[in-house]
Amino acid sequence: MDKLTLYIANKNYSSWSFRPWMALTGVSIDFEEVLIPLDHLSGNPNIKAVSPSGRMPMLQHGALKIWESFAIIEYVAELYPEAGLLPNDRGERALARSVSMEMMSSFRALRSACPMNIRRPKGKIALPDGVSADISRIETIWRDLLQKSGGPFLFGAFSGADAMFAPVVNRFDIYDLVSSADILAYMSAMKAHPAWRKWEEAARAEPWIVQEDEV
Amino acid sequence: MDKLTLYIANKNYSSWSFRPWMALTGVSIDFEEVLIPLDHLSGNPNIKAVSPSGRMPMLQHGALKIWESFAIIEYVAELYPEAGLLPNDRGERALARSVSMEMMSSFRALRSACPMNIRRPKGKIALPDGVSADISRIETIWRDLLQKSGGPFLFGAFSGADAMFAPVVNRFDIYDLVSSADILAYMSAMKAHPAWRKWEEAARAEPWIVQEDEV
Repeated sequence: MDKLTLYIANKNYSSWSFRPWMALTGVSIDFEEVLIPLDHLSGNPNIKAVSPSGRMPMLQHGALKIWESFAIIEYVAELYPEAGLLPNDRGERALARSVSMEMMSSFRALRSACPMNIRRPKGKIALPDGVSADISRIETIWRDLLQKSGGPFLFGAFSGADAMFAPVVNRFDIYDLVSSADILAYMSAMKAHPAWRKWEEAARAEPWIVQEDEV
Repeated sequence: MDKLTLYIANKNYSSWSFRPWMALTGVSIDFEEVLIPLDHLSGNPNIKAVSPSGRMPMLQHGALKIWESFAIIEYVAELYPEAGLLPNDRGERALARSVSMEMMSSFRALRSACPMNIRRPKGKIALPDGVSADISRIETIWRDLLQKSGGPFLFGAFSGADAMFAPVVNRFDIYDLVSSADILAYMSAMKAHPAWRKWEEAARAEPWIVQEDEV
């Protein structure tokens, strides 16, 4: 089989890149990584040359290019059905897709006010309208799934759905947005995952500063 | 098997509802429809009582509730693998997911400036920054897929990916946003589809006006 190549942007800032990288690394899928740094949020001509959508992440497999974080996870889940990227149960798999796609389509207030920033020291910021509602909805999603699965991850064992929320775990952490014990326990489990630690270490070593994401 | 029940909002305005409804209807899946009208864009308490995300659409199957338009399409594609909701070829299926999820996660400028409005007469409006780039990217997505498949739909026969773009077909049409022959031919194929016509007829008969969506 051709090698999988995952194109990503800066590990410190690129929330969209973090998701499939953490998913694949978290279930021990072998892939090659190509990092193209974002100089600014409006894009980088090198990214536009490589990725059909002009954005990262993008997975290349032979001549096939796949973009959008969760589409990449779905593709690799089809290639490696035993890896556990998606739950085995059809109903749970439907729930994993519902919450992953809600993450993709929603929470604009939170995502815009509180950029992912792996190396930022913890500290509160003023929150614009809409952020509290986003936080509360995400807490409800996590709580419902953790209560049903028993944890430590959303569907019991680590899966692609956790990876979809990894950037939000960072946001909740660095901007000090949540205080419930069950939510903090989930965040601790995520931050202790070997894939998280590997990404974090690489992010801390990056030289690039994206000023728009430093809030 | 339990009956599928698809909860949707107003057919004239609810772009998110249109997608799974058109997908399921377009491939002749049998389902029951429950319409809860949106009185205003900020939501309706009846919707919040029914749908976990507080939004439409939502598919109920026995005790299982599935939300987000494309997660619903994925679930029904698993229940009815022969229906053609997703391409059979793994690479094409990955592309169908990439473009469907790009539709879910992107094109905010277009979607915010140009609300879906089935019964609106055709006529141009002033377009804010970012709308042209959204239009151009969507044209590229369609053109690439139509050239590869030969049309008349994105992957040859009608599929869930077409349904994901159905609201954009309406936006391109009513605000007169595009003029290339290949793009207009695709839009004509969509608007001639029996599922589109059935939705359109019902939308035109609805009594509700949502002022924010009348631009």
